[in-house]
Amino acid sequence: MKGKNTAVGSEFSTFSGYFCDMETIVQSQTLIQLVKSVFLAMGCPPHQAQLAADVLVSADLRGIDSHGVARLSGYVRLWEVGRVNAQPHISIVHETPSTAVVDGGSGLGLVVAPQAMDIAIEKAKQVGTGWVSVKNSNHFGIAAYHAMKALSHDMIGIVMTNASALVAPTFSAERLLGTNPICVAIPGGEEPAFVGDMATTTAANGKLEILQRKNSDAPLGWIQDADGTPTTNAHALKTGGALLPLGSDKEHGSHKGYALGSIVDIFSAVLSGANYGPWVPPFPAYVPMPENQPGQGIGHFFGAMRIDAFRPAEEFKHHMDKWIRRFRSSQPIDPQQPVLIPGDPERIMHAQRLHDGVPLMDTVWQDLNAVAEKFGIKV
Amino acid sequence: MKGKNTAVGSEFSTFSGYFCDMETIVQSQTLIQLVKSVFLAMGCPPHQAQLAADVLVSADLRGIDSHGVARLSGYVRLWEVGRVNAQPHISIVHETPSTAVVDGGSGLGLVVAPQAMDIAIEKAKQVGTGWVSVKNSNHFGIAAYHAMKALSHDMIGIVMTNASALVAPTFSAERLLGTNPICVAIPGGEEPAFVGDMATTTAANGKLEILQRKNSDAPLGWIQDADGTPTTNAHALKTGGALLPLGSDKEHGSHKGYALGSIVDIFSAVLSGANYGPWVPPFPAYVPMPENQPGQGIGHFFGAMRIDAFRPAEEFKHHMDKWIRRFRSSQPIDPQQPVLIPGDPERIMHAQRLHDGVPLMDTVWQDLNAVAEKFGIKV
Repeated sequence: MKGKNTAVGSEFSTFSGYFCDMETIVQSQTLIQLVKSVFLAMGCPPHQAQLAADVLVSADLRGIDSHGVARLSGYVRLWEVGRVNAQPHISIVHETPSTAVVDGGSGLGLVVAPQAMDIAIEKAKQVGTGWVSVKNSNHFGIAAYHAMKALSHDMIGIVMTNASALVAPTFSAERLLGTNPICVAIPGGEEPAFVGDMATTTAANGKLEILQRKNSDAPLGWIQDADGTPTTNAHALKTGGALLPLGSDKEHGSHKGYALGSIVDIFSAVLSGANYGPWVPPFPAYVPMPENQPGQGIGHFFGAMRIDAFRPAEEFKHHMDKWIRRFRSSQPIDPQQPVLIPGDPERIMHAQRLHDGVPLMDTVWQDLNAVAEKFGIKV
Repeated sequence: MKGKNTAVGSEFSTFSGYFCDMETIVQSQTLIQLVKSVFLAMGCPPHQAQLAADVLVSADLRGIDSHGVARLSGYVRLWEVGRVNAQPHISIVHETPSTAVVDGGSGLGLVVAPQAMDIAIEKAKQVGTGWVSVKNSNHFGIAAYHAMKALSHDMIGIVMTNASALVAPTFSAERLLGTNPICVAIPGGEEPAFVGDMATTTAANGKLEILQRKNSDAPLGWIQDADGTPTTNAHALKTGGALLPLGSDKEHGSHKGYALGSIVDIFSAVLSGANYGPWVPPFPAYVPMPENQPGQGIGHFFGAMRIDAFRPAEEFKHHMDKWIRRFRSSQPIDPQQPVLIPGDPERIMHAQRLHDGVPLMDTVWQDLNAVAEKFGIKV
């Protein structure tokens, strides 16, 4: 059963939850205002509340629903238990002309990350590239938002973050890595930018959560059970199972996905002084913190490379357009499914949802209303 | 049928080829001398001949047989048709404090790559990090050799290269990318370095070549046929098939392997002015060059990040040791197969072959002897 309800501006209503799979359509500006109001109520400075709301809703606009407003109540709970500081002191604790380590002051990653990316961009303006490793932060939303900040400066943006352990290394029955995404955003000329944004696992956890809600099986190769046996049980993570690194099994290159996730962990946390591996703080506030943590908070890594530090930007963009057009015009296996450029699906979704509004699952919409109500915010 | 023959110093003999699967064991120093003599005979300056021989044989020592002396005759043929310049003019054509573009002067990649990595390291000494994109080069052997140069400087080394098109993007029936490897080398303290060196495909082409020689089937998920249908026929690449990006199919994340291979292509070639995508020159000298090439030669990308540009090197290494030990001691699925750290298998193989010698397939050993004979070199 599936239904739609359209909400524009503040003229929307909630459902009773009777139809578990119903959707409410909400305009992105409405969502941004709601999220901003919540962050303001938490005590965030106005410009940070606005920024955090922009970052969060950008995930919904790009179709990465698992990283958007569905997480708002989770951020609030982290603030309630004192793990998120709404007025963080964000500072550079070490730097060279092309590098910095930033202490996020336990702030919202949604606020810390754009500031760290700005530092990388400023350094790139000065010496060609800038590289910033961040400690003492929290979940930063979608990596693509931060990486794409580089594009308007004619720079390539590179973003990574670690996350709490859900992934088993090849040969391991234990979870030691997060889904640890990598995003690389590269400017095009007439063509839209190349934006590759990927968890270093076979499937992102958000995709698994969708199957869990539907009570559907997962494809073999996404997860293993507590013994390390491949399973299709989408609920296996709740009983000690793990997500699998990109590649799924050794024969299909899971040791490469494991290496990629490890590189993200090390660049984000061992370089900065954040927690790594099994010691990364969990996102749900009710999950106890790992004992004997070796660092502070979670870690991120940001890079910005000025195109004209290598060759004239216009020349580069001309060749990027040629690259993009050649790949897009590749002979498809199925004529109905042309070859895509990384970032195409999210860009198309962004344009569509910016125009039509964001469809929210009823449970998410109820959750948002409950958060608003808690702070006395009228939606 | 399988046999062994041990060759030490110059006291080795060739086989008749009667037993197709026989091996000859050759000491690495003997191989280096032989390869160096061949490069000298091609006209390489002595220090470059020595360097190129070291790089090439390092692949055999690390167990990456597809990238070692088995390729020597291929390099010679590229020189014979004028695609490799034995006395290249290698130059920086553009630079900023943290970046450079290097023109490899059509030299052996085995010589161009270490020089480009040295430039990245020098820049990192000055401003914290160094990033070098290279055009007009040729095949550079194994990425790990170049990335590991950073380790003794307490730096992280990052190396990528593009290669001629063997890989089909997700949804494509055409081959548009090379196996485009990424290597990241990270110093440990008491523990050996982390060295993740991986093709961005499910399986490296070298693994497929082994199956082709044995006339064995390939696992499903490694390759597709000319129509884009998954196949186990290890010979499918000879009839228009393609290697698959890491992830194998869309459901298992092949779009991520495709994005990773694309990033390598763009950093190596679109940034530098080398050829990219389907225009990258093929390694076999008898394969015609692609028409209307947009750049020069093949492209590489090198990065060096000084650890103490982020935090004190000793502090970092202490935490890397903790990271490595925690992962190595992870609960294994099979008690007989402990969890490995990227680089473990190659490091163990290197120590073993340095001591015991390098086992060469008889066909490879005959090929080496034929190359030596061509130049009048006594083996």
